[in-house]
Amino acid sequence: MSPAEELRPALDEIRAVDHHAHPLADPGAGHLLADVLSEATDPAMTAAMRDHPSHHRAVRDLARFLGVEANEGAIAELRAREGFEPFTRRLLEACGLAEMLVDDGFRFSGALSIADHAALVPCAVRRVLRIETTAEAAAEGWRVFATVRGRFRAMVEEAVAGGAAGLKTIAAYRCGLELPPADPDDAADAYARWVRTDTPRLTDAPLVSFFLSEALDAVRDRPVPLQVHTGFGDTDLALHRADPSLLRPLLEDERYADVPIVLLHCYPFVGQASYLASVYPNVYLDLSMALTFAAHRGPEIVLEALDLAPASKLLFATDASRLPELFFLGAMWWRDALAGALGRLIEDSTIDRATALRWAELILAGNAQRLYGPSAL
Amino acid sequence: MSPAEELRPALDEIRAVDHHAHPLADPGAGHLLADVLSEATDPAMTAAMRDHPSHHRAVRDLARFLGVEANEGAIAELRAREGFEPFTRRLLEACGLAEMLVDDGFRFSGALSIADHAALVPCAVRRVLRIETTAEAAAEGWRVFATVRGRFRAMVEEAVAGGAAGLKTIAAYRCGLELPPADPDDAADAYARWVRTDTPRLTDAPLVSFFLSEALDAVRDRPVPLQVHTGFGDTDLALHRADPSLLRPLLEDERYADVPIVLLHCYPFVGQASYLASVYPNVYLDLSMALTFAAHRGPEIVLEALDLAPASKLLFATDASRLPELFFLGAMWWRDALAGALGRLIEDSTIDRATALRWAELILAGNAQRLYGPSAL
Amino acid sequence: MSPAEELRPALDEIRAVDHHAHPLADPGAGHLLADVLSEATDPAMTAAMRDHPSHHRAVRDLARFLGVEANEGAIAELRAREGFEPFTRRLLEACGLAEMLVDDGFRFSGALSIADHAALVPCAVRRVLRIETTAEAAAEGWRVFATVRGRFRAMVEEAVAGGAAGLKTIAAYRCGLELPPADPDDAADAYARWVRTDTPRLTDAPLVSFFLSEALDAVRDRPVPLQVHTGFGDTDLALHRADPSLLRPLLEDERYADVPIVLLHCYPFVGQASYLASVYPNVYLDLSMALTFAAHRGPEIVLEALDLAPASKLLFATDASRLPELFFLGAMWWRDALAGALGRLIEDSTIDRATALRWAELILAGNAQRLYGPSAL
Repeated sequence: MSPAEELRPALDEIRAVDHHAHPLADPGAGHLLADVLSEATDPAMTAAMRDHPSHHRAVRDLARFLGVEANEGAIAELRAREGFEPFTRRLLEACGLAEMLVDDGFRFSGALSIADHAALVPCAVRRVLRIETTAEAAAEGWRVFATVRGRFRAMVEEAVAGGAAGLKTIAAYRCGLELPPADPDDAADAYARWVRTDTPRLTDAPLVSFFLSEALDAVRDRPVPLQVHTGFGDTDLALHRADPSLLRPLLEDERYADVPIVLLHCYPFVGQASYLASVYPNVYLDLSMALTFAAHRGPEIVLEALDLAPASKLLFATDASRLPELFFLGAMWWRDALAGALGRLIEDSTIDRATALRWAELILAGNAQRLYGPSAL
Repeated sequence: MSPAEELRPALDEIRAVDHHAHPLADPGAGHLLADVLSEATDPAMTAAMRDHPSHHRAVRDLARFLGVEANEGAIAELRAREGFEPFTRRLLEACGLAEMLVDDGFRFSGALSIADHAALVPCAVRRVLRIETTAEAAAEGWRVFATVRGRFRAMVEEAVAGGAAGLKTIAAYRCGLELPPADPDDAADAYARWVRTDTPRLTDAPLVSFFLSEALDAVRDRPVPLQVHTGFGDTDLALHRADPSLLRPLLEDERYADVPIVLLHCYPFVGQASYLASVYPNVYLDLSMALTFAAHRGPEIVLEALDLAPASKLLFATDASRLPELFFLGAMWWRDALAGALGRLIEDSTIDRATALRWAELILAGNAQRLYGPSAL
Repeated sequence: MSPAEELRPALDEIRAVDHHAHPLADPGAGHLLADVLSEATDPAMTAAMRDHPSHHRAVRDLARFLGVEANEGAIAELRAREGFEPFTRRLLEACGLAEMLVDDGFRFSGALSIADHAALVPCAVRRVLRIETTAEAAAEGWRVFATVRGRFRAMVEEAVAGGAAGLKTIAAYRCGLELPPADPDDAADAYARWVRTDTPRLTDAPLVSFFLSEALDAVRDRPVPLQVHTGFGDTDLALHRADPSLLRPLLEDERYADVPIVLLHCYPFVGQASYLASVYPNVYLDLSMALTFAAHRGPEIVLEALDLAPASKLLFATDASRLPELFFLGAMWWRDALAGALGRLIEDSTIDRATALRWAELILAGNAQRLYGPSAL
């Protein structure tokens, strides 16, 4: 048995904190496994994902766990026979989670409310507040900018006072990560432009930057971590503008030195993210989504994340949504990748088994617990 | 025997479609193996390539196949003794090709015409039309812009009507991939600037963008795939401007949703290309040239190409030119890399052997046959 | 025994040229191992590096060599007991160096002068002149620009006449690598702006570009190699502006075709650097710092450096500074990585053992000896 295989079962014993996930969907919405194993939205493309390694691995691992034949049909049939709730509970139980932080700003058909989601999953659940959708909600009805600003700050303050564990920005999707300095006058001008477009989607860089700054300012007295979407995502995003290196002005800003900044996803900028997490004390990275979609290179990607950054800077997350299957696979495959990576470090005598287990505990749970603190509710 | 070794011979049985190659050269032109195993053009640099892994691997594999001693001299001697045609036929026969698509826009000394090339290679041959050199031919004599435009469209239409299987843009070499929107007025201004330079080389971004748009428009009723040079190439190219992520406006343009777009080469932006091919139904990637030059990391590079993109999006190609040796090595090493990559997926039980063979068939032949269709002639 | 393990001892027999290092520090300055195994400067961050693979590997390898228990305390205790000089000599002797080229422009507490450093290390020592700090010294007192220019050229000429083996630019730290063309008028304007800031730090791109051009011009009759910081470094640097691809205008400039240009560090742009070194006869790369910090992926990184570039273009260096331990680890781990990489090429029959040894000799010593020539003093 290789060190990785020997280590793997111990990782199932660690109750993990999934610091970045989304809600489950109502089964009536009809999401399929192939639809959720890529960021594609076109049906032709999602069907094509059946010829991706992760799809084969998903069918293999789900069938093995559920005790059915290794094909999509058998899994779907069991799901229908067992019923959505028991099926979901069974898969979520197997994820071995202590807590889950849920960003409910990602919209898809049949999305459960956080309360309904929490009722289904066998662990604590806290919310992560998406800054851009909150700003859009604050702007609803195109109020005066000063009013929108006040409403936005109040919404952020209330969310955090009400137990939200973190903030999240999807600036990468809206204008890219090269943000101009936040400036109230530029923001007011940008707001006026936005109103004239009469589209609810916030995409103007000065305004995105301003709301990000306002959100951090609103919680200055009780800073919560800021999650930042970096790297790949759906086609709304220009990949070269999602390089986390572009975040430098934010990372260099001394006002935010106490705000933990977690770079989400990161692929294909894993080396860049590892670098940033190695030089800024408040910067962290996860590999969520990357380790689910590119599971066949999981150990290599984890080892690359550790090129420069220490084990105290890497966080587990599933980035799962919609299907309980995706939570299960995210939780299993992140552990597979981690066992593979740590196993190789044991194999070449870089670390011993005790260190591997301690690092696994940090990465799967301890780092997130330190960053996000215990649930206040 | 490893799964990769066990799989490898079966890949020789698949008649492959080399969807991107260039003509052979007349033997009198004196091209050497070391000259064609990199994108260098300086003789000092090409001589230095004798200390690159691919050169050693080339000598090893050619000598083994040809039954001579493993050194350049022995191979050259055999080539001279056998004669160019029999030597070429022997190596090309071993490539196991069903068809070859040839871009004859790449100029080098001794380049054979497509007809002469086709007479030498034991498979069907179709042409790929290079957009920029076609535009240069249309502009010859510095005619009025409207005339050039008409001539260019006619040349594209005729080429495709005459059996050309695809179009190709080398915008990466001319102005980089961050193209402005195609606009007839900007193009006319840019054309006037070009005329004043009195240099035949088309490099102005608005004009490159315009001709690309015109070419796609000219074949709108019978769309053929568009090949796009991305990633590394010779020193004409600024590597950071060859990142395929920069193609986003083209990929997002709904007018071209039915045009298959094949990202060529891709290195070192393989992760970026894998991402694009995973979210856009019409985007594909090959690893041509990368797998010939960096053959020692072939399996790793193929596995990276599959990080996000499914097997239905990856295409085999040699990007070979000039020497029959290069076609042979391209065809062998792409298969070596593919066997290595699929072997690892078998090894970790992600896929079974039947799936590996089905994917190999798609990557080596099926995907290209679907995209380019059967030869009409 | 694997080919890598079999090869490894032979690499210790090769007297290496460390073409890029910095001075040792006085032991009173109190630098710690964890402080120097990353580019972090924040104490919280450097403490966190104790959970990085390179820290564990460092303790393991130092303890084994020194014959003490594998923990930081035991190493520090031995260091105190033995005394700084004998301890340093013992570790430096084990590095197996023929020569060391030292950039003394990197400032840190307790930095030894080159003379004091040379007295401690058991090999020849030559200086590398940092262009930007030399320009800052020339500007001291804010003299008239023409005077500063003359002083700067004289300082460069004197340094090279006095035996400096090379020049080095840290433009990546000051303004990024996308440099405007050097222009005396722009430089004069930029100098006037700099004077008005009254800060000694040179950061203006036109001025950085101008001094780089002046430095190369000053030694035109006896060109020495130009070392260029590329890729990661401390937080002064914007990583996306340190991509070596951005150096293209310099690499294309025919005036500098005879100047060897060595890309330092390169991570995470190793593929980009490998490309540049494969197409420009005068471009080289080292992986210094990357192989010390990301030692657990050393063989993979060396193999990636060889993706396109031949063995004659890759140079060993430690980039070590301050602690003798760091020189030791840099020298050992670069050899570990090289043995691992060459071992894999032997394993898959790409090269034989004799070629592996010849390439190791080139990479560890021969390439640098060819570039920098013998010490003139």
